[in-house]
Formats: sequence, structure tokens, C-alpha cells
Amino acid sequence: MTGRIEARLAELKIELPQAAAPVANYVPFAVSGNQVHTAGQVSRWNGEFLHVGTVGKDVSVEEAYKAARICGLNIIAQVQAAVGDLDRVRRCVKLNVFVRSDEHFAEQPKVANGASDLMVEVFGDAGRHARSAIGVKQLPFGVSVEIDAVFEFA
Amino acid sequence: MTGRIEARLAELKIELPQAAAPVANYVPFAVSGNQVHTAGQVSRWNGEFLHVGTVGKDVSVEEAYKAARICGLNIIAQVQAAVGDLDRVRRCVKLNVFVRSDEHFAEQPKVANGASDLMVEVFGDAGRHARSAIGVKQLPFGVSVEIDAVFEFA
Amino acid sequence: MTGRIEARLAELKIELPQAAAPVANYVPFAVSGNQVHTAGQVSRWNGEFLHVGTVGKDVSVEEAYKAARICGLNIIAQVQAAVGDLDRVRRCVKLNVFVRSDEHFAEQPKVANGASDLMVEVFGDAGRHARSAIGVKQLPFGVSVEIDAVFEFA
Repeated sequence: MTGRIEARLAELKIELPQAAAPVANYVPFAVSGNQVHTAGQVSRWNGEFLHVGTVGKDVSVEEAYKAARICGLNIIAQVQAAVGDLDRVRRCVKLNVFVRSDEHFAEQPKVANGASDLMVEVFGDAGRHARSAIGVKQLPFGVSVEIDAVFEFA
Repeated sequence: MTGRIEARLAELKIELPQAAAPVANYVPFAVSGNQVHTAGQVSRWNGEFLHVGTVGKDVSVEEAYKAARICGLNIIAQVQAAVGDLDRVRRCVKLNVFVRSDEHFAEQPKVANGASDLMVEVFGDAGRHARSAIGVKQLPFGVSVEIDAVFEFA
Repeated sequence: MTGRIEARLAELKIELPQAAAPVANYVPFAVSGNQVHTAGQVSRWNGEFLHVGTVGKDVSVEEAYKAARICGLNIIAQVQAAVGDLDRVRRCVKLNVFVRSDEHFAEQPKVANGASDLMVEVFGDAGRHARSAIGVKQLPFGVSVEIDAVFEFA
């Protein structure tokens, strides 16, 4: 039996990546009360780094939007690993979106929409979240986008 | 009838901006349990971007302090929209202050004080918060300061 | 009588710095429900700034690892100040690790391990946390690493 959100993922033909395992003394998610805090998720698909480079220089805003969507998919995979059934998600509370940015690139919100749009596609109104979008100098492995999240579950 | 904090705002002649509406699949605040998480608020007053530029190069520390204060006013406006009556605020828990910084500018705490001082002016001891101040490369629309917040309410 | 974690610190010969006092209208920690949010802690030992410079240029990854460990020690000192007895710590929930990075330095996770390894040394499994590692342009006082944390306590 599949849940409501799993059915929705299938209907939207959205495939989740494998939830990446920890590679150090940190873990990909931590549960506190009825919240899941995810580790920063990057544009990595089942181990392979995608969308490496500086947005506004090596990477276009359209490509960075896709990178943010992949970060979002990794976040959903981690939330699923944390709570078991995605139907338990009550709210995507907060996304912190870090965009590796060129000096003159100030469209971080357009990039962040890649993750925001995904959350609403998958969770409907429960996917609407508070968000910060920040232009940073570098990110792990040189990826273009890193995003972490707080979710509330029932 | 006005509440205690509204009366204090009037006494201090502090005017709040309109709480900006969401422009995408994210929202300006999300409530989880008895906490409000705000989206990153920038130095924007009723739609107009103020204090655009790199601090330590185009923008002085004094001007950036004012930018941080405006971010703080937008945060308070969002918290008011979230909880209705500001008297319900029990604590400003955390401010994350992102300052668009020149290579050699390391006075992010002085900038962040613009928001910190405001919180204590308005909320008294309940306005004292944990804070991080970070120097970043770029911010949405090229503004000098972006701040997000966690508040606890009764 | 010393607690379990204090005994562990002594056994590991780990000395905590003095919990730095607030220098402005913000405080080094804020308690909300059963969580402690710490202010951003930098590589400062009892008032003296250590490990100043850009990682990947002035500062090596090994030195930055040590800087992150010092940030972690300051975090533990603040959590102790917040909850009294470190045995009350139920979980290190989240670390946000900001690394002052050179353009081409993308090993922020190796730096962040300095704090992550410390948390597991001190708290065991309760020290395993979600983590974000971000490469930023500048940090207060020019330090190489700043870290803030969310802890859950009983």
C-alpha cells in the first residue's frame, strides 16, 4: 500500500534519489520533538555531483534552478528516511538556500524557486515554507547549490 | 484597544512596514508549534529596495546598521502578521544576519546590531536573542543585509 | 560530584573555555522549549581570536579543522551555561558551519569535521547531528570559522 504523497510522487513521475548515508560524525537528518532538521543537501544524485560551478558565471540561472530542485529531492528523501511515511509530513517549515554566486549575480530567489516549487508540487499547501536565499562564495565539492530544511511531522 | 508592544512602538515612534506578501511558492513566515520562522527579510520598505551595495565598499557600516534595522522592522511586521498581537511574543530566539561584505570588511557584528538593538527597544528583555553574523558574497536584488528569525510566542 | 559528561571531558583532557558574555543586545544562547540555540561561536579562546584568515589561502585545512574544534568547544561551554549540567543534553540537533573560504577552496566538510568529531567524542551518539557547511566571504574579526548550534535537552 502506498501513501498519498508516494502516490502523488508517482503521478508526477518524480523519482527520489537514495537518501545519502553519513560520511562522517554527522548524520543526514536529526529529529527533535516533531521536527526533522536535515543536513545541507547538495545537487548530488545517487553519489554523483551535478551542477558544479559558480552561478552567473559557469552556471546559468535555469541550470541552477534544476540544481535547487535536486537538492529538494534529496531533502525529501532524507525526510522520508527520518519519518518513514511522507504522509506524516505536516509542514515544510523552513528552507535555507545557499547559492554559489558570482560577484554580480543577485537572482538567488529565482534559483531557490527550484526547491520551493518542488515542495508545493509534492506536498501542496503543506509544502509552503519560509525561506532564505543567500549568495555564497563556495560550497562543498564546488556545487552550485546547497539547501537545508526544517520539516514538521505528525 | 492597542496592546503593550503596539503602544511601545507608538511611544518610540517606530513605524512598521507592510508585511510583504509572498511572490513565489514560499511564504514570509511559517508557524511550527509555538515558534514562528520568518523568511529572510531584506532592506526593503513597502516594496522599495533600500541600501543596495557591498558593505565596506559601496556602503558604510553606519548605513548597513540602518539596513539591518529595516530588516528587523520587516521581521517584526511578519511576526505580527503571524501571531496577530505582538504581545503574544515570548522571545526573539535567533537572528541569522547575512551581510553582503567586501573582502576586507570584518565588522558584521556592528551591522547586525541594527537589528539586535531594535529587538531590545521593542520587546525589552524578550528581545534578547542568539545571533549569527556572516559576511556573504551576494544577496537577492543586491541588498546589503538579509536577516531571518525564529520567534517564540505564547 | 561531577556528571557523566564532565567526567568524560576530564578523561579526554578536554578543557572548555569560559562561556563568553554578551557584548551587545544579543546573548550567547537562547532557550526555547527544550532547545538551546547558540549564537555563532568563533575560534576565540577566552577572549583571544585564533585562526584568523582565509581557508585555502592563509589558513590550511588542518588549521581550519582546529578552528572548528575551538568553535565547538565554545558551543559546548554555552550549552553548559544554558542548561547547567551537560548530562541534560539529549541531542546535538544541528550545526551550521560557516568557513571563510578562498575562491577555489571546496573542502568545507573537512573543516566542519573539527566540530563534528568533537561532538561525538564528548556526547557519543547524542553528539551526532545534522550539519550544513558553507563557504563564505568574511566572518567577524576575520576568523576562519563560525559555527552555531541547536541542542535538545531533557
